[in-house]
Amino acid sequence: MRLSVDPSRDPSAYDHKHRIRVRFCETDAMGIVHHSRYLPYLEETRVSYLRHIGHPYSENQAAGIDYGVLEQWIQYIRPLRFDEEVDVHMVVAGGTRTTFEIAYLLTVGVDVRSVAVTVHGAMSATGKPTRLPAWLAEIGAQRNAAK
Amino acid sequence: MRLSVDPSRDPSAYDHKHRIRVRFCETDAMGIVHHSRYLPYLEETRVSYLRHIGHPYSENQAAGIDYGVLEQWIQYIRPLRFDEEVDVHMVVAGGTRTTFEIAYLLTVGVDVRSVAVTVHGAMSATGKPTRLPAWLAEIGAQRNAAK
Amino acid sequence: MRLSVDPSRDPSAYDHKHRIRVRFCETDAMGIVHHSRYLPYLEETRVSYLRHIGHPYSENQAAGIDYGVLEQWIQYIRPLRFDEEVDVHMVVAGGTRTTFEIAYLLTVGVDVRSVAVTVHGAMSATGKPTRLPAWLAEIGAQRNAAK
Amino acid sequence: MRLSVDPSRDPSAYDHKHRIRVRFCETDAMGIVHHSRYLPYLEETRVSYLRHIGHPYSENQAAGIDYGVLEQWIQYIRPLRFDEEVDVHMVVAGGTRTTFEIAYLLTVGVDVRSVAVTVHGAMSATGKPTRLPAWLAEIGAQRNAAK
Repeated sequence: MRLSVDPSRDPSAYDHKHRIRVRFCETDAMGIVHHSRYLPYLEETRVSYLRHIGHPYSENQAAGIDYGVLEQWIQYIRPLRFDEEVDVHMVVAGGTRTTFEIAYLLTVGVDVRSVAVTVHGAMSATGKPTRLPAWLAEIGAQRNAAK
Repeated sequence: MRLSVDPSRDPSAYDHKHRIRVRFCETDAMGIVHHSRYLPYLEETRVSYLRHIGHPYSENQAAGIDYGVLEQWIQYIRPLRFDEEVDVHMVVAGGTRTTFEIAYLLTVGVDVRSVAVTVHGAMSATGKPTRLPAWLAEIGAQRNAAK
Repeated sequence: MRLSVDPSRDPSAYDHKHRIRVRFCETDAMGIVHHSRYLPYLEETRVSYLRHIGHPYSENQAAGIDYGVLEQWIQYIRPLRFDEEVDVHMVVAGGTRTTFEIAYLLTVGVDVRSVAVTVHGAMSATGKPTRLPAWLAEIGAQRNAAK
Repeated sequence: MRLSVDPSRDPSAYDHKHRIRVRFCETDAMGIVHHSRYLPYLEETRVSYLRHIGHPYSENQAAGIDYGVLEQWIQYIRPLRFDEEVDVHMVVAGGTRTTFEIAYLLTVGVDVRSVAVTVHGAMSATGKPTRLPAWLAEIGAQRNAAK
């Protein structure tokens, strides 16, 4: 496994917060959000983060760089339910020249519901691994140095 | 509305049958298959039909033709539940030079659960409406003549 | 078909507007939002409307009433793409003692992308058709009178 | 993390195989299967396995036992594409009195595409952790002994 980070359960350990309201279609017959539906929440949060720091996804596409998900891990602590407002906290938690790792904490109010990690790799339009853009490699390097 | 066909509730009115087992992730907190999840069943059935008649989807892609969904309609008669085996019956129900219409009947055993219609348009790689391939225009024309 | 309304393409014909940003996971290999993914947009908009008029979904659940989708129809006029902000306009367009119909218009800026209709039925906890709550029957009756 | 198993890339290390054909709706605008869509493949394979060994999901439900996903991890090695036939290999890889772990290998022909692990906990109807049924605890215990 490439995953190296153990996500904190303390919201103050994260850089960015994005709020998502649970859709009815995301629930399953157990009455809770289906475990596969957390991944789109993480993705929406990443897109929100990129927009927030001034490097929207469209900029990457224009530069011919895409980011593939190489690996992901989620721990489900307490379930999410329809219409709850979920705060997804995220932080870029490290990186290499071609990959970076993100840690997540999902809370509803002060209640911890889930922690997660995703690992991403930069790819050219033809799917080849490629170097991260300088601004993103910089974020990862700062995090690595802080460990 | 472009929809012109009223789908029969008699399986013998259909040309092709494709069986799908309901996935747990397709249910919602009401304990039934979410209404948005029927559309992938119809799509999987269309792909199965194209393969069955010797014109697999890959052939269309190779020819630079794609099919966009222009319109769809579903009537939910009785709900579908987890692990049920659904027979999706379909028939090409008519067409024009650039579009075709498909009717569907969803049954579980002899029990009718749903009827549906989809309307599709052929498009070039750049998204422009284009003429249907001859074999498909032919199927639509035969259906039109039979009405 | 129960559908009786033809949705207007004029936003001023609608009562409520809800904005949704397209998620990456909602796109398909044609590079556009998959046609099945519009239904959750309509559903999220209904939930937003109920909250807006002071009758949140939780109130219905507490009263033992659920709403099943009986029928739906969507016309796809121009595709939706990743990260677009979609305004979903909706209006309760009519009703009976046990059902109601909603019309929708999807726009991005001034650009019309889609129109849709859904038909819903009130059900008891055991799935039996039941009368609409008075406030909802009233909205449908006003609409019927205005036609 | 509870995950303790490192999934083998050798199909012969697995007990059960389930074949799934990729649906078009499971692809995204990168032209590959969206990373969130692997989890339903794993789930469908678990259901197939339970049916195969004579303990279908309905039996568990009748016994008032449900299985929650506590944790999952997926490594994406090479992408999956529309219409590919994916073999999902799985094996119960260990367990405790209330939880069990499953390892997965996804292949297309001889080509390895992904490995994954899920961790599950038995729960009563009210969501409380409960002991696994004897037959399932036995499978986990045999695996633990073989390590």
